Amino acid sequence: MAWAVGVDIGGTNVRVARVDSTATVGHALSEPLDARRAEGRPLAQLTDMICALLKESGPERPAGIGVGATGPVDPEAGVIGNVPTLPEPFRGPLADRLAERFGVPVRLENDADAAAAGESWTGPGADTEIFACVTVGTGIGGGVIRRGKIVRGPRGWHPEFGHHVVDPSGPLCYCGMHGCVESLAAAPFVARAAIEAGALPAGAQAADVFAAAEHDPACRSIVDRADSAIATAVVNLVATHAPEVVVLAGNGIGRPGDLVSAIDRRLADYRFTPIGGVRVGLSRLGGMAGCVGAARLVLEPGVWS
Amino acid sequence: MAWAVGVDIGGTNVRVARVDSTATVGHALSEPLDARRAEGRPLAQLTDMICALLKESGPERPAGIGVGATGPVDPEAGVIGNVPTLPEPFRGPLADRLAERFGVPVRLENDADAAAAGESWTGPGADTEIFACVTVGTGIGGGVIRRGKIVRGPRGWHPEFGHHVVDPSGPLCYCGMHGCVESLAAAPFVARAAIEAGALPAGAQAADVFAAAEHDPACRSIVDRADSAIATAVVNLVATHAPEVVVLAGNGIGRPGDLVSAIDRRLADYRFTPIGGVRVGLSRLGGMAGCVGAARLVLEPGVWS
Repeated sequence: MAWAVGVDIGGTNVRVARVDSTATVGHALSEPLDARRAEGRPLAQLTDMICALLKESGPERPAGIGVGATGPVDPEAGVIGNVPTLPEPFRGPLADRLAERFGVPVRLENDADAAAAGESWTGPGADTEIFACVTVGTGIGGGVIRRGKIVRGPRGWHPEFGHHVVDPSGPLCYCGMHGCVESLAAAPFVARAAIEAGALPAGAQAADVFAAAEHDPACRSIVDRADSAIATAVVNLVATHAPEVVVLAGNGIGRPGDLVSAIDRRLADYRFTPIGGVRVGLSRLGGMAGCVGAARLVLEPGVWS
Repeated sequence: MAWAVGVDIGGTNVRVARVDSTATVGHALSEPLDARRAEGRPLAQLTDMICALLKESGPERPAGIGVGATGPVDPEAGVIGNVPTLPEPFRGPLADRLAERFGVPVRLENDADAAAAGESWTGPGADTEIFACVTVGTGIGGGVIRRGKIVRGPRGWHPEFGHHVVDPSGPLCYCGMHGCVESLAAAPFVARAAIEAGALPAGAQAADVFAAAEHDPACRSIVDRADSAIATAVVNLVATHAPEVVVLAGNGIGRPGDLVSAIDRRLADYRFTPIGGVRVGLSRLGGMAGCVGAARLVLEPGVWS
């Protein structure tokens, strides 16, 4: 059966996986992003990981390599630009470098779009006209699949859903706006808000805030604000793209059940949900969504084109 | 030369126009919406206006009738539903009724989408991959044209861009949310805010608020808040759809030059504009955008499909 290497380059970890054309994940590897391993070999960490995966994957060659990377990326040129969240060795003409090294086709995509492609490949998202995936982690991203194709901006540009404004009284983000959803609900901002409020000591992580929210009112209020920002963002996704299914993914969601309930309550108040309503759910693929979607770019190229 | 009847049914006025396949407007009629003229004949006002237009338009029959109507509408079925802003005689199976009456094809679309189709037919919007039009009037609407086609939700549903949240501290809208852009910047809300603030007497209109803003600080602050809400909405349009061109249309924009400047300033601060930037401009077609776009649905059916 045809298979592809699915690669997920996030702000913290690199993952590679064998994914076949039924969307089944085989062997997989995950490592923290390591800028120091370049030593004159751009992409050294990534190529080493792919070599290790190929070694474990038997004699059948992969149909190609799909890569989802934290953006902005240029999917048409296969280039990762000057991305603040990635160290220098990961930037540049990634698709050409990997294609030359491994002799197979390579497709590059934004990681939120890759996650959306993965989550909608099979399962409840597969038969929807419009599907959306919101990823919450180091940053917040959104990917929309419309009639089986990734929704992009001009010349392959990925619309930066995480940087749309949900509350102008919120903190200033590096995107230049106050109160984009990322500035209120991404993991580092949740942690920073708790530290700045004096609720947790320096060095605290988002997970600590979620844990402390069970008893500490200040942390509770930060988590509630984050959940509310994500709920507003989902309403805004409905108002701008009208998805039938919205999947929440990423490791930055503290209390997934509570968040889904908060979103459902908000949508119940909203008059302009599309006919048939909006189903909100959690990721089926978890941390593998990006790898699975990246592999899909190769195995089902229609989703990418 | 082929031509079509373009119809624009707004919350306040009905317009019909002869529009040819070069997007040129010929004879046109405009009347205030009149619910009392139905008297057992649904659509009496509209059919009378179309008859008058046909009489003025010479012997060549139109290729069809295109209708843009305040929504929600069902473009696939050609039905105007239970729309709060339209009186009962305008609701129901409009496309079938007009097709039966006039013996030509009829296409129905949401009015914001029709305006977007009109504004992008010729001029600077015509060669863009992604084009957006924001209409500001009795309500606020948005239409996106992606690679020459209207962007819709599932089963033809029109995403209600005017009801996405830009500031949760804003007033409660009938959409169920606080601080959607319509609740902060549509003409009736601007007027109501000035009346509630005691800045203008009951019965004041948005135009009065815009005039008073020249000297009255309370009115000035309401207009600034409306402009800021629209500027945020345009940033959010960029973050969700990445248009290359955004056109502002509708009769609810008080100080068009100031508004465009406010939006340009906001976008200059924003890191995630697509490569090539976003051009923000004012409507070329003014009040005729809806009629022109409605006619385009018939004369260039690809935009509608």
